[in-house]
Formats: sequence, C-alpha cells, structure tokens
Amino acid sequence: MKISSVNNQLIKDTVKLHNKKYRDLENQFITEGYHLYEEAVKYGNIKTVFTIDETIVGDKVIYVTLPVLEKLSQTKKPQGILCVCEKVKNNEVTDKVLILERIQDPGNLGTLLRSALGFGFNTVVLDNTCDLYNDKVIRSTQGNLFKLNIIEKNTIEFMIQNPDYKYYGTSMNGVELSKIEYDKKLALILGNEGSGISKEVLSLTSENITIKTNVESLNVGVAGSIIMHHISRI
Amino acid sequence: MKISSVNNQLIKDTVKLHNKKYRDLENQFITEGYHLYEEAVKYGNIKTVFTIDETIVGDKVIYVTLPVLEKLSQTKKPQGILCVCEKVKNNEVTDKVLILERIQDPGNLGTLLRSALGFGFNTVVLDNTCDLYNDKVIRSTQGNLFKLNIIEKNTIEFMIQNPDYKYYGTSMNGVELSKIEYDKKLALILGNEGSGISKEVLSLTSENITIKTNVESLNVGVAGSIIMHHISRI
Repeated sequence: MKISSVNNQLIKDTVKLHNKKYRDLENQFITEGYHLYEEAVKYGNIKTVFTIDETIVGDKVIYVTLPVLEKLSQTKKPQGILCVCEKVKNNEVTDKVLILERIQDPGNLGTLLRSALGFGFNTVVLDNTCDLYNDKVIRSTQGNLFKLNIIEKNTIEFMIQNPDYKYYGTSMNGVELSKIEYDKKLALILGNEGSGISKEVLSLTSENITIKTNVESLNVGVAGSIIMHHISRI
Repeated sequence: MKISSVNNQLIKDTVKLHNKKYRDLENQFITEGYHLYEEAVKYGNIKTVFTIDETIVGDKVIYVTLPVLEKLSQTKKPQGILCVCEKVKNNEVTDKVLILERIQDPGNLGTLLRSALGFGFNTVVLDNTCDLYNDKVIRSTQGNLFKLNIIEKNTIEFMIQNPDYKYYGTSMNGVELSKIEYDKKLALILGNEGSGISKEVLSLTSENITIKTNVESLNVGVAGSIIMHHISRI
C-alpha cells in the first residue's frame, strides 16, 4: 500500500492527532523519526507506521510519498518515518516518584522526563502540565517516554492515595539539598516555571529542598535534575 | 518624544537588530521586558528604551504606540518595554570557566548561562554556538546575561592562551563526577547536543567527566548544570 495523495482520508485523520483534543479522543499520538520508531517497536504500542523508506517492513507499515510525509509531520525537514502509537497505560507506582505541577514549557517537561528515567524516578505524575503527547515534549524526551510510568492526576489526590510516600517540595527558603535525609519511598514535587508549587501543595510537603545558587532561581528542568541526581547517588 | 508610525526610520533600523548580521555590525542587541530593563539599568549598557509605559522616565526613553512596540518585538504579546543595549565587553578570566563548543539550541545556551552564574562559573567561552544575542537566549538567561564575562573564542585558542587552567571534558566513558579531584582554576567544556565535544578538543582535556545515569545521555543543559553544581559545593 502506498499513499500519494495528501487528501487521503487516513492522512487527514492522522494529521488531526497534532491536536490534543483528538489525541485524547483517540487515545493515540504521533512520534517522528527513527529513534522513536525503534523505541515504540520495543515497547509494542505502534498502531501505524508511515514511511518513505522501503527498507522498513511489517504489517503496520504504510508507504507514503514525501509530500504526504511532510503533511503528516510537524517538523520542517521530517525524517523518513512517523508512527501513530497507542497511549501508554499506567503501572504500579515505583519507589521514586516525580510530580510535576503545572509545568508549561514542552522543552522543560521533555527534559525532566528524560532525567527522571536517567535517575530512577520511574513514575511521573503530571498535574495540569502541558500535553505529554505534544511533539516538542516527545522530541525532548529523546525516546525515553515509553519506559516511564506516567500518571495524569491531581497532586493532592495522588498524595491522599499514596500516604506511605514522603513528599519533598522545592522552595527558595527550604533546606539545602545535601542536609536532608531522604526516605526510600519518596516523591519530588516541582512546580510551575513562573510561580512554583501551589500553596496548597506546599503546605502538605514534609520538607522543602533548596539548591544553593547565586541566581534568583534556576531553570526548573535543571533544578529538578540536580535534585534527582543527588538522590540517585545516596 | 513619541513615535506612532511603524515606518519611522529609527523603528525600521531597530527591527534590523533581530538579525545577527546587524547585531554584529552595530555591536548592539535588543532585550524585552521589565526584568531585563532593570538588569540593563544596573549594568549601565542601555542605548535606547522604547516603551508604552509613561511611568518609565529618563533621557534614553522614547515613547511609542502599541503597534510600534509590537513591530519592534519578537514575541506575540510584548511586555510594555524593550531596550537597545550595547554588547558587553570582556573582563579578566575568572577561576571557574565554562566553555561551550557548538551548542546550537538557544534554550540550552540560555539555561547554561543562567546556571553558570548560579554556580560561580563567571566566565563563559562561546565557541561557534548559536548567537548569544538571539532573543530566545536572552529570555532563557532570565536577566543573568549582564553579570557574566562572555568571550567568543575558539576552544583550543583559549586553552593555548590559558595554560594554567585544568580542562575537564564530558564523555560517556569518562570518570564519575564525584571521583575526580578538581583544580581551583578550571574550565568545564560542554559540546554539541548531537555530537558532543570535538575530537581535537577531547584529546586535549586532562580528565573527562561522566554522570551515572540510566539513559543514553542527558540534556546538555542538565548535564552541565549538575557538574557545575557539584564543583560549586567542593
């Protein structure tokens, strides 16, 4: 099968997945490029592969022309392959959890997911963040999206449902990173780029972490990664 | 003085500063928003302030209408103020130096400059990176640009001119971060997002640092910040 018309109904329906509303409705999302294709193959959640590369074979593969691929892609110079994937289901909550409250920048979200996996925070709770399946987020995770257990949930609801975890916030007036004793089962909470963690959540944390620095604040992706790195080495 | 025409010659000339060629030619750049205006006032390198805000006063202030401000701005919803600043001159090289070789993403460059200042790496060498005065870079630095000593120079040239520094690279097969003894006078070198540090430079470093992680690689802004944070606490 080869699709050469940009007006093909399947192509038009697939393009809609660049819109969050349709991603939520269909429970699917798009990944671009070879690296994410390979990760999705390993993970086993591919629905359809669109490609101009005839060395890619399989019953889910649909060949398309370059204009069709360009129509499907969000990037100016698409790699030769693009997948429609099923959204990932939740698994058991791991010992180390990262909670992201209202993170709005897709680059920050992607970077934090990549670092979370890097430092063993294999469960990530998204509370009112930008959409996980936004193409910039997926690109920033560098293929590490599928290995994480990602839960979309309100932070306080998660805290109530998981009372055996110790919750650590971040704040400018907290305790220095290395002076804190960290529990085995813990959740690190990071807040919005501009306003930080909400007051309600901050009032429920056991301890708030501060990173000693000469600037007013660090980028949230940097701050979160420094803390996760520190905890991973204890 | 109030400019209400988007075709005013000064406005047309100022808009050109969004182009690197003109920034280099004029030795000037644009900052947007109140935070950067305040930082530039402190630093003393403002040439002209364009604003719709009549509470802002001074002999460098030019009032404009909203359409003129929108024409001058790179953002969709500009804050009420925008400055033309003189480029910053170089000072003496500090004990801790960050060298960035071919960093291409403006968000990464801005984040690294913010962290550099945060962790006392007050001299930053830019070797063939994206333009420092790109508006996205300036935004990501969050007003911390002016406090840094920024030098645009080839890495090897810098190494030759500063032989009393110890040079640390980053590599996947290096020595774990905490197992290294760091000299007082040191430079940390970070390389391109895709290809890392160039072979020529890597062959000249004293030691290459590795961060232990479960992923193939970390975001370069994250990796650099983790290393600078570690060194700042020794």
